[in-house]
Amino acid sequence: MTSANPAYVLTLNCANRPGIVAAVATALFEAGGNIQEAQQFDDTATHRFFMRVVFDVAADIAIEALQQAVTPVAQRFGMGWTLRPKGAKRRVMLLVSKFDHCLADLLYRWRIGELPMELAGIVSNHPLETYAHLDFTGVPFHHLPVTRATKMEQETEIWRLFQESGSDLMVLARYMQVLSDGLAAKLPGRCINIHHSFLPGFKGARPYHQAHARGVKLIGATAHFVTADLDEGPIIEQDVERISHADTAEDLIRKGRDIERRVLARAISFYLEDRIILNGNKTVVFTG
Amino acid sequence: MTSANPAYVLTLNCANRPGIVAAVATALFEAGGNIQEAQQFDDTATHRFFMRVVFDVAADIAIEALQQAVTPVAQRFGMGWTLRPKGAKRRVMLLVSKFDHCLADLLYRWRIGELPMELAGIVSNHPLETYAHLDFTGVPFHHLPVTRATKMEQETEIWRLFQESGSDLMVLARYMQVLSDGLAAKLPGRCINIHHSFLPGFKGARPYHQAHARGVKLIGATAHFVTADLDEGPIIEQDVERISHADTAEDLIRKGRDIERRVLARAISFYLEDRIILNGNKTVVFTG
Amino acid sequence: MTSANPAYVLTLNCANRPGIVAAVATALFEAGGNIQEAQQFDDTATHRFFMRVVFDVAADIAIEALQQAVTPVAQRFGMGWTLRPKGAKRRVMLLVSKFDHCLADLLYRWRIGELPMELAGIVSNHPLETYAHLDFTGVPFHHLPVTRATKMEQETEIWRLFQESGSDLMVLARYMQVLSDGLAAKLPGRCINIHHSFLPGFKGARPYHQAHARGVKLIGATAHFVTADLDEGPIIEQDVERISHADTAEDLIRKGRDIERRVLARAISFYLEDRIILNGNKTVVFTG
Amino acid sequence: MTSANPAYVLTLNCANRPGIVAAVATALFEAGGNIQEAQQFDDTATHRFFMRVVFDVAADIAIEALQQAVTPVAQRFGMGWTLRPKGAKRRVMLLVSKFDHCLADLLYRWRIGELPMELAGIVSNHPLETYAHLDFTGVPFHHLPVTRATKMEQETEIWRLFQESGSDLMVLARYMQVLSDGLAAKLPGRCINIHHSFLPGFKGARPYHQAHARGVKLIGATAHFVTADLDEGPIIEQDVERISHADTAEDLIRKGRDIERRVLARAISFYLEDRIILNGNKTVVFTG
Repeated sequence: MTSANPAYVLTLNCANRPGIVAAVATALFEAGGNIQEAQQFDDTATHRFFMRVVFDVAADIAIEALQQAVTPVAQRFGMGWTLRPKGAKRRVMLLVSKFDHCLADLLYRWRIGELPMELAGIVSNHPLETYAHLDFTGVPFHHLPVTRATKMEQETEIWRLFQESGSDLMVLARYMQVLSDGLAAKLPGRCINIHHSFLPGFKGARPYHQAHARGVKLIGATAHFVTADLDEGPIIEQDVERISHADTAEDLIRKGRDIERRVLARAISFYLEDRIILNGNKTVVFTG
Repeated sequence: MTSANPAYVLTLNCANRPGIVAAVATALFEAGGNIQEAQQFDDTATHRFFMRVVFDVAADIAIEALQQAVTPVAQRFGMGWTLRPKGAKRRVMLLVSKFDHCLADLLYRWRIGELPMELAGIVSNHPLETYAHLDFTGVPFHHLPVTRATKMEQETEIWRLFQESGSDLMVLARYMQVLSDGLAAKLPGRCINIHHSFLPGFKGARPYHQAHARGVKLIGATAHFVTADLDEGPIIEQDVERISHADTAEDLIRKGRDIERRVLARAISFYLEDRIILNGNKTVVFTG
Repeated sequence: MTSANPAYVLTLNCANRPGIVAAVATALFEAGGNIQEAQQFDDTATHRFFMRVVFDVAADIAIEALQQAVTPVAQRFGMGWTLRPKGAKRRVMLLVSKFDHCLADLLYRWRIGELPMELAGIVSNHPLETYAHLDFTGVPFHHLPVTRATKMEQETEIWRLFQESGSDLMVLARYMQVLSDGLAAKLPGRCINIHHSFLPGFKGARPYHQAHARGVKLIGATAHFVTADLDEGPIIEQDVERISHADTAEDLIRKGRDIERRVLARAISFYLEDRIILNGNKTVVFTG
Repeated sequence: MTSANPAYVLTLNCANRPGIVAAVATALFEAGGNIQEAQQFDDTATHRFFMRVVFDVAADIAIEALQQAVTPVAQRFGMGWTLRPKGAKRRVMLLVSKFDHCLADLLYRWRIGELPMELAGIVSNHPLETYAHLDFTGVPFHHLPVTRATKMEQETEIWRLFQESGSDLMVLARYMQVLSDGLAAKLPGRCINIHHSFLPGFKGARPYHQAHARGVKLIGATAHFVTADLDEGPIIEQDVERISHADTAEDLIRKGRDIERRVLARAISFYLEDRIILNGNKTVVFTG
């Protein structure tokens, strides 16, 4: 999938009607683009059309020229669309709490270049020494303790940091606080949470204890966009592992850590590569 | 796991205290038994102990001698227990409705000897011609149509057939009727249902449509013992498969058939091999 | 994915260069086509481009008009291509031997319409009574016994049946005979075999016994196109299941049956839906 | 599985004959032991018996008393056996090379107590600065560069460090050097390697490139004990993930990292909990 030429990712969605693919492909071709990958989805229930195109162009073609090529097509079909240089790094802010397995995992994947992002900051309601064995070099750390009484002020500060750091995405990497409706409403499709159950089973608190009490034979984790409805946001990615009667709730927590970190990492990766498009309360994920 | 000598399966459960394994193993040894397999589980939450032992004995030792050897141990520890010749076939009655993928699958596994059971009968609320391409040779078929008004009479007839046929286990192989509390109460730990979702998510009707509407990324199936609480009985086995946004509800139904039939077949197999012991509203499943 | 209008599936492959998608999409649009699905793959190692497009047209547009629309594009880019009405059933000949689990499974999926194919015939080196409990209604059965001395004649007869029945695809559904190079050479990309191991591990005979002897912790199955090199043909689909030290070779055979039948069914389904394109000794499989 | 009393793990293996379980259970009971878990395996091919027992005793009972209780039983049946306090930490030496994903993962699991081991040292043929973002606090690091000419001296030094540090287990955590036969021979059942393929497929170098060239649809990783025969040692654990034609060799390397690290972590965990017993060139793994 490599190319000497600069590549771009175009995503779009609109009401479905004939000619969309031809119009988009022709516009890109006439602007000098060579399509490397294209994925599309036609939601026959809602008659909505979704597409993701990766293409490259000669080095002397500016993104503005591409935007000008796409704009009339987008207007004709009433598209929502995004166009970004492929590999351009999004800025991500991580919110964490005491459990740091997702945080450690994301930091590692970031350092070796597996997750193409810039870490705009780490916010925790626990102090820096909680993470003494993790290397935060190059990433601003913000200790923002929270109580019920100070939650509004703390969230205001989170929002300020998010904006001032130019963040694109907020990730709740086992952040054990529920975002207020107000903050959630500012981040539609831009805030990813990892819930430690296979939703919609075991919503709410202590899902591994719920799973143990119910006697399920598989446990899972779910990465989803945060909405005002707790644990009801659009699901991005899920996975499970087999357990047995012999597993205690503590065993589930241990086994669950592995599921949580890989599910969250995959969901973030999909986001960073412009693979996710919202479709009402669901997601289209072009996993390629 | 083969042996020229006759083999037996002993299952037991009791409050946990020291000396159980020693007492059981010694009693079996002194009765001439050679343990082939043994599995145990100590539920540290309830302090209950569960064990399954497979052992063989010389051909001239009768099961009565083995029962006499186990009885005093069982009395001393207050055990619930079962002792059966290994491979002795249980009698199974299948209840089905229009969809016959589980039925066809179970029939096949039965014919080739993969499921060591006798089929005591097939009960359907649809007529025989519904299953024109399946071979019921050697299995009594009973057409018992049901309406809301005749449900009590129909269930009475099912129960009569179950008893008269000497059935041990009732299997709801995509039987689209809910058993009444009264019938369910007669079959604790002896009636297995396959629910076409990964419980506790998507209880009730049309779970694949629920799953499609929620936008989950995995679908599943659950085999469980039937209790008066619909979809709340002890879970025996579960499995899942990956889906995507592109799958319609109909695609989920198709993919789900494969999950349903293998989950149900596994659960029945566990039952037939005395691998399941009830533990309150959960199961201990010694999968070996 | 349903549409009141007739739909078609176009597959194509050619050397990669700019403008292919635009040219194809424009040609289809101008011929009245509305693209429902499109998938493409650009093999950056070989610079070869692969595409599958599903589109619908108004009922009064004939396939010849579509062919005329595609032909000049295909010529310009030097494409190999196919165009077929979506859902048009391919004719499939099954070759089987003693073990009939794949056969029974394929028959069932065919009857309920899950596999959109016509069964052109079943060929076995065992007599009809081997399959007494399977319903072959509507499918010609041919008993073609084979010995080393008669292999050439038997294969000649198979080939004659394949041609006379208008078959498109030959499926070796646990057919325990190796096709001669000569017969294999007549069926490039048109003969699918199920090998009962996770290739390239455990080629050749008795793979479950090999797996047991090696002590692997997962077993698998592989569906692949048949070529003159035994077990070396292009792989279409694979899957695995977990096993343990406690599983005997016989247990592996039993567990393997489930893997074999679902892997083979998936591979055939991909073929019937024009989802497979050969790429040298590999396959492009647009699983959608 | 918790107990206020000290617990012990007993493993044993011997030729199979009647009375083993009774003798062991009785000896433990008479010594004051209460069995928490017991697993056994009777290899019917080799007539060898394997067992793992976890039991607790009153705090005033010394391990010597338990050893005295087991010894006569072990002698009577000709057992190989081990007895260790449950949770007693084994000392582990890690050998690494440039790729540090397994190393980072093992360090994390060690720090949070998920892997109950002491890290006796980290040996690398690359200098300390290679791992600038990992925290080696409390773990001796040894830079032992190696060339073909100095391999013997380097291995001698590794062996010296292993012995002097009192290490029980050597782990090749993506150590890209092949151990000499001489060093391998000193560590039977005490040196675990992670091979980045689903063995026995793709032995030797660059397995992901081999997998890409062959066009497999799943990739895997294998943790095994090191023997003189490269990639032929007893397999402890394996896992796989699905890939597609669109994955480049580089994609396989990236996806493979996740498989490698979880397979290696599981294998080490099994070792640390005395769950692995060698059975010729295979392993018995009591995964519980």
